[in-house]
Amino acid sequence: MIGAIEAGGTKMICAVGSSWREVRDAEKFVVPTTTPDETMAKIMDWFVAQHRSTPLAAIGVASFGPIDFSTDSIARATPKEAWRGVSWRDAIRAHLDDIAIGFDTDTNAAGLAEWCWGAAANCRVAVYVTVGTGIGGGLIIEGEPVHGLLHPEFGHMFVPRQRDDRFEGTCPTHGDCLEGLACGLAIRERWSGSDHPFPPEHAAWELESDYLALAMVNIIMIASPQIIVLGGGVMAVEGLLGKVRMKTRDLIGGYIAKDELTSDIDSYLVRPGLNTSSGVVGAFALGARAADVMP
Amino acid sequence: MIGAIEAGGTKMICAVGSSWREVRDAEKFVVPTTTPDETMAKIMDWFVAQHRSTPLAAIGVASFGPIDFSTDSIARATPKEAWRGVSWRDAIRAHLDDIAIGFDTDTNAAGLAEWCWGAAANCRVAVYVTVGTGIGGGLIIEGEPVHGLLHPEFGHMFVPRQRDDRFEGTCPTHGDCLEGLACGLAIRERWSGSDHPFPPEHAAWELESDYLALAMVNIIMIASPQIIVLGGGVMAVEGLLGKVRMKTRDLIGGYIAKDELTSDIDSYLVRPGLNTSSGVVGAFALGARAADVMP
Repeated sequence: MIGAIEAGGTKMICAVGSSWREVRDAEKFVVPTTTPDETMAKIMDWFVAQHRSTPLAAIGVASFGPIDFSTDSIARATPKEAWRGVSWRDAIRAHLDDIAIGFDTDTNAAGLAEWCWGAAANCRVAVYVTVGTGIGGGLIIEGEPVHGLLHPEFGHMFVPRQRDDRFEGTCPTHGDCLEGLACGLAIRERWSGSDHPFPPEHAAWELESDYLALAMVNIIMIASPQIIVLGGGVMAVEGLLGKVRMKTRDLIGGYIAKDELTSDIDSYLVRPGLNTSSGVVGAFALGARAADVMP
Repeated sequence: MIGAIEAGGTKMICAVGSSWREVRDAEKFVVPTTTPDETMAKIMDWFVAQHRSTPLAAIGVASFGPIDFSTDSIARATPKEAWRGVSWRDAIRAHLDDIAIGFDTDTNAAGLAEWCWGAAANCRVAVYVTVGTGIGGGLIIEGEPVHGLLHPEFGHMFVPRQRDDRFEGTCPTHGDCLEGLACGLAIRERWSGSDHPFPPEHAAWELESDYLALAMVNIIMIASPQIIVLGGGVMAVEGLLGKVRMKTRDLIGGYIAKDELTSDIDSYLVRPGLNTSSGVVGAFALGARAADVMP
């Protein structure tokens, strides 16, 4: 059995299972993300009880970031002050000292899950992007999430402002980086006079698709993925993915003469194959790899 | 012996050698890039003569792009019309049918050379960027140039316009992509009233460093390299690299809390270790890998 923790900024989703399908379909233990002490105590109590009934070989943690791989902890740059420097490795070791631990960002893990069992299955170079409250992503090459200096932070790239957009942006560090202009929070703040949810014809989605298409082009020009999987709450808006596809194709303008970027763009910019389970299934994948039981 | 061709858009540089140092220091055979027939005939005559005196095990070709790996040819999207669809593999096979052939973009090859024997030695994730007449680059992960859907085309990412810059951009496809705003051609066209070469205090270099720093941030946020090697003629301008370093550090603003992006930025954004030989040495590396004689 492998334990999986999708450690998000607003809630943490825990599950155990001996296969990705079992984890996907398992009843989840969900804890709101409050203080590290409180949140981790609840999570570890639950896993200790699980371990007592069926021993766990490993726990995989897919954590909000940025994270510091040298200590498997939340990096000090996180805007969540209480979580700065908090180590998942230490927390797990304090309660279960004999199991393997897998650790990565939530978005790298989701990308890995999509590569293993989802929409990006077996692509040499795959990208996962999530557009929700924030914007993040993972770059998976030959089945391995890329860890260079740190890990990808797609949300903090810079893209040109569109249509005389004067919104200052919501990113505490960068202001008008991609996330600052186009994350869920930015959409709510820019159009704060409008009633939620916005209908599909609201101007918010034209602007949103402009920014996301620019982000797609930058990812394509820098990493040359064979597929981009787009998840997250914002992407669920009706018609948005279609707009992003068209605008990405038009921006590239045939410069990269590949069917995937012209006639077949619908099979290139795709929804997650694991729906909303990419994160927790990714945490399972991290645990299974740490326990050396990946198929 | 390994043959090496750095096939650039204005000239092609050929050399042979049994080690990268031999190729770096060898007398080069240089041919202007005119029509494919004329250029390739001269090159192949030279290599056939070399092969007669000391048999070649392989030839590596580091070609201007975009290129099509399915046929080892220049892609149809190249602005060089006469070279559309021209196959290096066919040209070499027609004269030397028993040797191995290595093939990649000039910028992937230069990045590979920097990873093997230059400034990016043994970095898990390394990026090479060249800023000259055009802007291009290579992404090297675990010692392999990344080939996803195609290959990186850093020059064609989009970045925000700076300081009310109204220049329309020189990219035939995209207009004001990074290359359109910041390549050597764009610098010359934007400031066409000024005398070349511009002194280091010319406003051109403030603007140029703004755009290049934005490109560095986008590369860092998408690929998370452990080092970025900056080559090409424009980067030789006095003071430019220093400006790009400072502005990249300031734009990231501490969001990625790594010394490499703060106090140690000088060791993160660096000049090529192979100076101007990265391309031809990279072609040697491609040939040596094709012949299976890489150390």
